[in-house]
Amino acid sequence: MPASRYTYLGPEGTFTEAALRTLPEAATRELVPMVSVPAALDAVRNGEAAAALVPIENSVEGGVTATLDELATGAPLMIYREVLLRIAFALLVRPGTQLSDIKTVTGHPVAQPQVRNWLAAHLPDARWESSASNADGARLVQEGRYDAAFAGEFAAATYGLEPLVKDIHDAQNAQTRFVLAGRPARPSARTGSDRTSLVVWLGDDHPGALLELLQEFAARGVNLMRIESRPTGEGMGRYCFSVDCEGHITDRRVGEALMGLKRTFPKVRFLGSYPRAGADTTSPLRPGTSDSAFVSAAEWVARCADGGAA
Amino acid sequence: MPASRYTYLGPEGTFTEAALRTLPEAATRELVPMVSVPAALDAVRNGEAAAALVPIENSVEGGVTATLDELATGAPLMIYREVLLRIAFALLVRPGTQLSDIKTVTGHPVAQPQVRNWLAAHLPDARWESSASNADGARLVQEGRYDAAFAGEFAAATYGLEPLVKDIHDAQNAQTRFVLAGRPARPSARTGSDRTSLVVWLGDDHPGALLELLQEFAARGVNLMRIESRPTGEGMGRYCFSVDCEGHITDRRVGEALMGLKRTFPKVRFLGSYPRAGADTTSPLRPGTSDSAFVSAAEWVARCADGGAA
Amino acid sequence: MPASRYTYLGPEGTFTEAALRTLPEAATRELVPMVSVPAALDAVRNGEAAAALVPIENSVEGGVTATLDELATGAPLMIYREVLLRIAFALLVRPGTQLSDIKTVTGHPVAQPQVRNWLAAHLPDARWESSASNADGARLVQEGRYDAAFAGEFAAATYGLEPLVKDIHDAQNAQTRFVLAGRPARPSARTGSDRTSLVVWLGDDHPGALLELLQEFAARGVNLMRIESRPTGEGMGRYCFSVDCEGHITDRRVGEALMGLKRTFPKVRFLGSYPRAGADTTSPLRPGTSDSAFVSAAEWVARCADGGAA
Amino acid sequence: MPASRYTYLGPEGTFTEAALRTLPEAATRELVPMVSVPAALDAVRNGEAAAALVPIENSVEGGVTATLDELATGAPLMIYREVLLRIAFALLVRPGTQLSDIKTVTGHPVAQPQVRNWLAAHLPDARWESSASNADGARLVQEGRYDAAFAGEFAAATYGLEPLVKDIHDAQNAQTRFVLAGRPARPSARTGSDRTSLVVWLGDDHPGALLELLQEFAARGVNLMRIESRPTGEGMGRYCFSVDCEGHITDRRVGEALMGLKRTFPKVRFLGSYPRAGADTTSPLRPGTSDSAFVSAAEWVARCADGGAA
Repeated sequence: MPASRYTYLGPEGTFTEAALRTLPEAATRELVPMVSVPAALDAVRNGEAAAALVPIENSVEGGVTATLDELATGAPLMIYREVLLRIAFALLVRPGTQLSDIKTVTGHPVAQPQVRNWLAAHLPDARWESSASNADGARLVQEGRYDAAFAGEFAAATYGLEPLVKDIHDAQNAQTRFVLAGRPARPSARTGSDRTSLVVWLGDDHPGALLELLQEFAARGVNLMRIESRPTGEGMGRYCFSVDCEGHITDRRVGEALMGLKRTFPKVRFLGSYPRAGADTTSPLRPGTSDSAFVSAAEWVARCADGGAA
Repeated sequence: MPASRYTYLGPEGTFTEAALRTLPEAATRELVPMVSVPAALDAVRNGEAAAALVPIENSVEGGVTATLDELATGAPLMIYREVLLRIAFALLVRPGTQLSDIKTVTGHPVAQPQVRNWLAAHLPDARWESSASNADGARLVQEGRYDAAFAGEFAAATYGLEPLVKDIHDAQNAQTRFVLAGRPARPSARTGSDRTSLVVWLGDDHPGALLELLQEFAARGVNLMRIESRPTGEGMGRYCFSVDCEGHITDRRVGEALMGLKRTFPKVRFLGSYPRAGADTTSPLRPGTSDSAFVSAAEWVARCADGGAA
Repeated sequence: MPASRYTYLGPEGTFTEAALRTLPEAATRELVPMVSVPAALDAVRNGEAAAALVPIENSVEGGVTATLDELATGAPLMIYREVLLRIAFALLVRPGTQLSDIKTVTGHPVAQPQVRNWLAAHLPDARWESSASNADGARLVQEGRYDAAFAGEFAAATYGLEPLVKDIHDAQNAQTRFVLAGRPARPSARTGSDRTSLVVWLGDDHPGALLELLQEFAARGVNLMRIESRPTGEGMGRYCFSVDCEGHITDRRVGEALMGLKRTFPKVRFLGSYPRAGADTTSPLRPGTSDSAFVSAAEWVARCADGGAA
Repeated sequence: MPASRYTYLGPEGTFTEAALRTLPEAATRELVPMVSVPAALDAVRNGEAAAALVPIENSVEGGVTATLDELATGAPLMIYREVLLRIAFALLVRPGTQLSDIKTVTGHPVAQPQVRNWLAAHLPDARWESSASNADGARLVQEGRYDAAFAGEFAAATYGLEPLVKDIHDAQNAQTRFVLAGRPARPSARTGSDRTSLVVWLGDDHPGALLELLQEFAARGVNLMRIESRPTGEGMGRYCFSVDCEGHITDRRVGEALMGLKRTFPKVRFLGSYPRAGADTTSPLRPGTSDSAFVSAAEWVARCADGGAA
């Protein structure tokens, strides 16, 4: 039964699977690995799965463009949850392999910059070749095509490998953010520490349109958390913007900012409001932007329009 | 009965009286001249009059500070109507006086800069002394204290004088704007060509507060028509701003801008929304700022928050 | 010899004279009272005086429009000095007059709102009539035309009067700011606590022009101290802006802001940079806006353009 | 001799090589394919090559993050030239292969979304596997590992393949922009249609920092062409911005904007000013932002500071 099925960017043994397993409800769902982000999301669109977990951003590599673009186009999806996962690689080898035996290494292209310094220091002569995923790299080591693979330590067991070196990461605090996307429905309930995701198309792209986009948020004291330009596909120099802001669509300041964007720009896609993961502290509210400030200002305007106040 | 009484800045024969008489309802009201703007407005505050007509702005001399300050402080009043009057002076003299007889001239201090060039050209040796009002100047000519007074041509009859020269004005198109103020009640009905008046106190006056004030309007596509700084009386460098914008408080964009001001600044006084006088054309609306754009954006946000749209 | 002559807004005994006498060089100048602000300034324009001291702003009454408009138009003048004077009035009477004898009082129209509350409390039945200046009011008391005049205590001796009540002022900390204007020459030397004065015409007055004006200052971290709209005389709704900002034209941030205004607006008149009077503390500089920050940024750009830096 | 050697993102037969061969000087250089963008650029840093051509942006896929990140960090490099290349794929097969024979296809991951629709329509059952480059995919077809590869038609000859289908591209007008990077030196000469590239680190990332970045450009009328956020590697939510603007560093408006960025933000890296490729028309200059407007405004400020103008 699809409602109990979650897809994720597979294969088994990827960081995405590890992230998915941090969600309590994962224990009672059928978890199905898919070959790509589009495949994972299309299963949701087609009704074959209730939700899909896909990576959206890495603190070293940046946005996951496949996810950004899939969410921006096609049948609408919405984000209901995010998961933050610390990323550290293990060097997985067939049992018995020594560091000095390693001539070829593999891993997902995204992993490469995160282990580049380690490789230069410890395996300067090993040849890197990319694989379709970290888990796929592990499988190729199992099959003997490469001597070692960078992957999550949790992938070792799945592929009968052992972690020769653990906790490899060039950047301190490398993290990946994953999102759980489903078909459009009521957004996750407001928690007070929320994130709202949008895609905004600037239209005729006049100089200053991006400035206007930011001002719609700034005018209401809504802080941006992330902004990424993505090509619209209409030609070089035409962009839309994938944006996350602090707060929930039911926060008045966020609702008014969204109204401003909707009025100003030709196309806005709402991708959901959902609880923020991680220890990030929410920025303090700018004075005059709390819900109660909005409510009392709206009441004042209503009284003025009614002759009951000045 | 007070409801039928209108006060105005007197004495009889001023431009203010002329402006008041352009209002159709003036024909059925008792029109009472008062010695000053504060006196005219206090009669309204005290319930002795239903409304008061006072000058607020002159296209040559600028804002009438007594009016601006009276409306900004004290018991609240609201503006329900504006009148624009073209200002041209007549040189009033006792019958028989020739131009060459004139050694002394008088008039309200505000009149002086508007006839300065004419005086320099035609009466270079005449001595100017200010009077409390143009009409008062006419009275002083009647009493023989001055040889001539600048006043509205309509004041001649009242004081037994004759207009020796008519239509004197240094600036082409000199106009004065008058406002009809009453006690707070429901604003005048929206006409589609309206003006909204406010006073905003910036509070701690941090650098950039005025910029924020303007941005509250700009963010909603509301055009400013007039802005004047006035001292708050709390010391040099402390100002509030008297502001007129296009539109009516029931226009969504104006309402949202007023909400933004109310949330952002420590004190805002609403002085009314009322029909614009004169042939000034209203600026075209910026795309996305019509009422229907606001309504459909609000509906979209509501649908998003409800799970019914993406 | 004109170079040794300073004019001021007379007559003798005004606060302007008192302000002028606070300047050390006043001791060695011939001080000539003039009947009006235009007359005082025209004497400088005509070469009959080296400089003129005129009031420009009062912390209760706001800008002195005659001064603002005279400096904005006509042959250019520049401000070299400012004087801040605390304003308190004395009630001047002929010797022997008692409070209970006073039926009529006079004073400059600007004085009236500053003593209004005092009058209501102590002389509720006295009739107020305006005089051309506070000193002129004193003269009219001397001549017996009024029973009492509000003026500076220092004016008593000049007119053979005595101060019946001293230190009258409705507003705490009432101050008037005076400026010493001369023909255009090199501005006063930079002191580190300076004020720069300008007049900016917005041109076709498109919505948002005032916002752009403020942004030219904000973009360089230059704080506004005062901004007043003044009609251009071209018709209702056409304004120029009289502006004071912190800093000296030779401060890089001020120079760049002035360049921005000059490039953006059809007309800008520079009215001088001069030392700030009074205990007002200068706002702290925004990071990155000191002269050294400007110099090193300019050097960096030059190096980049030259191939010597990246 | 290195000065005559250009590296590029290889292997032979990639679009990058095709782009490089559009440069006239390529005819007289030794063109050396490298296995990765970092390798191509490091050869320049090490002095083994004079310049490297690497892809930086694709109108369908967006920024090439390896290039953006390599230019933002490490030993400084500068861009001296850009090349725009229309992207269309050929389906390369071993001679004799029919469409119905094709079970497996390969190509660079970036190619996949650009041929996705074509694949779904014409080879719905073929299995896609990514290769390290389009050219590498061609080689793997040559070796028999896959049945077909998507690559530039020009790659067919190199690998003994033939184009079974030509001009495949899901998006009309797909283009890739390549940049020629060298060691820091004097920027390319101004042509009047130039692009300037920068990386700006926002520092403590306070809300509104991105708005300030945009305003530094907007305040001088400099149009942004591209902006991409990239993680700084210091943790989730910390970004720098890779920015292209119209104009040349020696354009006054661009120089002043760069100064503003340098003063305001903790770190700015100048990546060069160079001629724009392609038929894109340059935006019209905002009034007041031409070099002559800057020069005359600077002269005016200098005259004011010198006493020679008002």
